[in-house]
Amino acid sequence: MFKNDLYLRALKGEIVERPPVWMMRQAGRYLPEFIKIREKYDFFTRCRTPELASEITVQPIRRYGMDAAILFSDILVIPQAMNIEVEMKPGVGPWLPNPIRTQKDLDRVIVPDVTVELDYVMKAIKASKDLLNNEIPLIGFAGSPWTILCYCVQGQGSKNFDKAKEFCFTQPILAHTLLQRITSTTIAYLKEKVKAGVDAVQIFDSWGGMLSPTDYQEFSWQYINQIIEALKDEVPVIAFGKGCWFALEEMAKSKAAALGVDWTINPKIARKLAGSKITLQGNMDPSRLLSSPSHIKKMVTEMIRSFGKDRYIVNLGHGILPNIPLENAKAFIDAVKEFEA
Amino acid sequence: MFKNDLYLRALKGEIVERPPVWMMRQAGRYLPEFIKIREKYDFFTRCRTPELASEITVQPIRRYGMDAAILFSDILVIPQAMNIEVEMKPGVGPWLPNPIRTQKDLDRVIVPDVTVELDYVMKAIKASKDLLNNEIPLIGFAGSPWTILCYCVQGQGSKNFDKAKEFCFTQPILAHTLLQRITSTTIAYLKEKVKAGVDAVQIFDSWGGMLSPTDYQEFSWQYINQIIEALKDEVPVIAFGKGCWFALEEMAKSKAAALGVDWTINPKIARKLAGSKITLQGNMDPSRLLSSPSHIKKMVTEMIRSFGKDRYIVNLGHGILPNIPLENAKAFIDAVKEFEA
Repeated sequence: MFKNDLYLRALKGEIVERPPVWMMRQAGRYLPEFIKIREKYDFFTRCRTPELASEITVQPIRRYGMDAAILFSDILVIPQAMNIEVEMKPGVGPWLPNPIRTQKDLDRVIVPDVTVELDYVMKAIKASKDLLNNEIPLIGFAGSPWTILCYCVQGQGSKNFDKAKEFCFTQPILAHTLLQRITSTTIAYLKEKVKAGVDAVQIFDSWGGMLSPTDYQEFSWQYINQIIEALKDEVPVIAFGKGCWFALEEMAKSKAAALGVDWTINPKIARKLAGSKITLQGNMDPSRLLSSPSHIKKMVTEMIRSFGKDRYIVNLGHGILPNIPLENAKAFIDAVKEFEA
Repeated sequence: MFKNDLYLRALKGEIVERPPVWMMRQAGRYLPEFIKIREKYDFFTRCRTPELASEITVQPIRRYGMDAAILFSDILVIPQAMNIEVEMKPGVGPWLPNPIRTQKDLDRVIVPDVTVELDYVMKAIKASKDLLNNEIPLIGFAGSPWTILCYCVQGQGSKNFDKAKEFCFTQPILAHTLLQRITSTTIAYLKEKVKAGVDAVQIFDSWGGMLSPTDYQEFSWQYINQIIEALKDEVPVIAFGKGCWFALEEMAKSKAAALGVDWTINPKIARKLAGSKITLQGNMDPSRLLSSPSHIKKMVTEMIRSFGKDRYIVNLGHGILPNIPLENAKAFIDAVKEFEA
């Protein structure tokens, strides 16, 4: 079906000649061809215009030839569709002028008809699939319900999401109501994405690592697991929890096809915690792409040897940073393609 | 020597009737008696005036009766003494107008005579010891060299300290020169603190958890270990690395008397990684002090049972937050005092 199906084979746990590689946030801010588009169109215009979103999706593939593309979009399209206003403030990032902190705030949060509210995403998927022309698979994604709650309650990015945690710890019933609404919306959304053509879905739990292991189970994992259960028979599901090493053992018991890990865990320990049966994805420190290209290649080779070439997808431990030189991103990808077991 | 020596006995690994308790940042912003002082005097005036620093140090002890006091001060007095300008900007936090990013910047960074430059800290220690009147021990502290470097290079707080990491990964020789200067200053500083009367010292590696295990060894742990080696024969040294669970096994091999852990690690796993011989300190999520007092007491009791009552110091997993109700902080301390094995 695909000219290059390394990514899907690694997700299935098949023996591969080399591991597949892609980079979180590969479609975006470090690429000059993206910056040109950004100069003309604002963030949500880029997300909402299928021609722009699909063009941005394939830009990194044209330049570097990764083994999978990820749709250009944002995790905050979900709260937007749920009747929560979301802006992108230059220099600030996500900005939600009316955060959810009371029952009254929650009353206006809906579970939308995603086929209507998020139709533009489905169109962007179809346009991306056309451009990709069955060369490589396309990944769809969503934020974890906990991570989405963090933004909905805090109202913006934060070092510790103190207001989001306060909401959960002082008003747990409201918190669980909101989490369930986000979960239901996300499941419907990802199912539509699969219908539109994505070949795998990844759940990004960017802020799960701010919770204790007990609170992670209560406020994050149970909802991620609902999403996995709802999607697992349709496409492979990848769960990435930044800072969630403590839950790896539990996560590996789920029906996820793969688990993403960040750079604070040693690959061998990640493998030990997750067991031998699930595919792992990660985990170079995005800042380490500031090292020299030759140093990057050496680190990538060591990383593959530590994770092992099978049941493994080479990636960064979080999104690529805006200030990464092009030749350094190239060194990361090339090192994987040049890997010899 | 002390009317209450539970804290020092736990550091030595002695059998105790109950574990000792204190809270990181216990002297400060959640206390109304502190806020009154803050309304009159700015941050560095509070640090530099022995009468104010010692009064703030003992305020939480008067109110709650913790088993140890920690000197009111700041980790950034070190770069200040090293000829790096540090301000406290309201609403921003630490602000270093001339961050260290080049050889030229580094040229002006000195290893100061701490007996002169930081004499005000020693005076604050003596004043605090007078007020404490041998009731409980007094803890002195310093930031880890890596954490201090983060501020010196970034110039302010940050979500990911990208500029600090870029500095280390692109100019490692400069980075190690700066780290060694900070380490030498910190050792001299802590030795003076011991002479002035502190009974234990804690190293705060607030940002060690942003590094990969390999980079942590290179840029953080080796310098912390230098400090431990230099101080270990004078007082117990406690190493607290936020997010540094991945290094616990290595840290436990050091001469540290205790290791602090944050709330993202399960107590039993922390004990397994650190082994049975070293004292552990932590680790309730500071945000969990927003739960009800009865819930807090339940969580504290469970935490003590999980860590075990011996070789254990009850604490939070990071500093207490400004918005914690007084009765909740009281519930945390009282739960430990009421603990029955």
